[in-house]
Amino acid sequence: MEINESQGLSVGVVGLGLIGGSMAKALQKYTTYQIYGWDIDSQTAQMAVEQGAVDRLVPPQELGSCQVILTAMYPQQTVNFVKENLVYFQKGTILMDLCGVKRYLVDQLTDLCGEAGVTFIGGHPMAGKECWGFADSNPDLFQKASMIVTPDERTPKDALTFMENLFLQIGFGRITRTTAADHDSMIAFTSQLAHIVSSAYIKSPRAQKHAGFSAGSYKDLTRVAKLNPQMWTELFLENQDDLIDEIDEIIVHLDEYREAIANHDGERLYQLLDEGRRIKEELDQ
Amino acid sequence: MEINESQGLSVGVVGLGLIGGSMAKALQKYTTYQIYGWDIDSQTAQMAVEQGAVDRLVPPQELGSCQVILTAMYPQQTVNFVKENLVYFQKGTILMDLCGVKRYLVDQLTDLCGEAGVTFIGGHPMAGKECWGFADSNPDLFQKASMIVTPDERTPKDALTFMENLFLQIGFGRITRTTAADHDSMIAFTSQLAHIVSSAYIKSPRAQKHAGFSAGSYKDLTRVAKLNPQMWTELFLENQDDLIDEIDEIIVHLDEYREAIANHDGERLYQLLDEGRRIKEELDQ
Repeated sequence: MEINESQGLSVGVVGLGLIGGSMAKALQKYTTYQIYGWDIDSQTAQMAVEQGAVDRLVPPQELGSCQVILTAMYPQQTVNFVKENLVYFQKGTILMDLCGVKRYLVDQLTDLCGEAGVTFIGGHPMAGKECWGFADSNPDLFQKASMIVTPDERTPKDALTFMENLFLQIGFGRITRTTAADHDSMIAFTSQLAHIVSSAYIKSPRAQKHAGFSAGSYKDLTRVAKLNPQMWTELFLENQDDLIDEIDEIIVHLDEYREAIANHDGERLYQLLDEGRRIKEELDQ
Repeated sequence: MEINESQGLSVGVVGLGLIGGSMAKALQKYTTYQIYGWDIDSQTAQMAVEQGAVDRLVPPQELGSCQVILTAMYPQQTVNFVKENLVYFQKGTILMDLCGVKRYLVDQLTDLCGEAGVTFIGGHPMAGKECWGFADSNPDLFQKASMIVTPDERTPKDALTFMENLFLQIGFGRITRTTAADHDSMIAFTSQLAHIVSSAYIKSPRAQKHAGFSAGSYKDLTRVAKLNPQMWTELFLENQDDLIDEIDEIIVHLDEYREAIANHDGERLYQLLDEGRRIKEELDQ
């Protein structure tokens, strides 16, 4: 890698939705780099220029002027995009994908990029909202958040260090280095299961009559039911094994509470609830 | 009922935990009434006096000086308390219980109190936190919250009106009148199930390794796992039928997502997620 910051770095952001848009805005706010952007939706792309999130729009064929390219699209779309446009990227470019699954991307793209002299690294910013699209993007979406990176033995150390420093510079509070497999396994629990449970929760017939009965716990449990169904469908299917594990896990536990309640077994129910309280308190320390 | 505000009303609050303590503080802040309090824990009672949440401590035998008595204890404890001390209450007193289940309380206490000339009304403030005890009580815990009341044909209208106005005066944003049965049915969904799901969620082995992988959705889904196990055990057991309904309901839905993912059926998965999104968006309007 031959990035020399004094030369004036150019960063390309492809896909200007909530994550890509926020990444472009954060890079504008916290670095002096040139930020180029692209989105298949011309209205989104136009909005990004007008709001100054990107210095200019650069079509895929011209991304060769960028030393760093960030992709923030759906998984399949990202793989297609890279296969189609890798030929235009310059040797030494660092390409980092930001979508929510990493095994599929790392498997598909690391060697392919390597053969073209491009360094592919998987990344996943642990930030999001119950909304999507450029209109909700925000330069401070990543403040204090964790940035997950999934390098492996094929990743040049200097490229990894450069990217990690860049993320700290734009506001992330920590870098979490892990493998693509461990990323997908953990994300099945911390993010994917939360979206499934929230979506399932809201389907009770009682939800239709909840006005006046809603407290903080209901609001928390159903917040992320308002999700982007197309994106999450793809993310879930690319993480089938880990996510099924997690759904099975929570159903096993729900059944334990159900059984204790059905048996009117106060001692067992107390034990189950107290165990959950203890785990949560220990994790929060 | 013969409450005349110009006489200087006295309100007694029995049980000075999070809800009782906050109720006493709110009454002090937003009314000119005398607030008397009691708690079986002498340290809690002392703290309530020192912080001015109650004007003075009044043992159960002296609650006859109060025109309104609020109980904020566990269900069984409340029934025992009323049975033991009803003899000391003056005729015309309004007694409202604030715990999280209502059928059991209304069934046990309405006629019993009525025979003693005391008006019993069920109530449930839709506010709470993932903590408990007087130390976390707050005069503004109820700001804009919903106050549920469960009157029935035995409830004098003027007593109900008086209490509803009192709750609006201390900051509640709305009064929700319903039956004790409908209360318990709805609360099984909006509050009890949320606590069960949160407690079950945190039990995945992956929870132990979640540092660096946690985003807002994980935090929301697990917040209320930090619960008071003794109180919730009792509340769940007093609402067995409704709560089992709700646990069964969410498991049925979780199984639908699981099946779609296991079958790699993107169309069905999209449909399930989009339906959840649509329901949530409609309810939020």
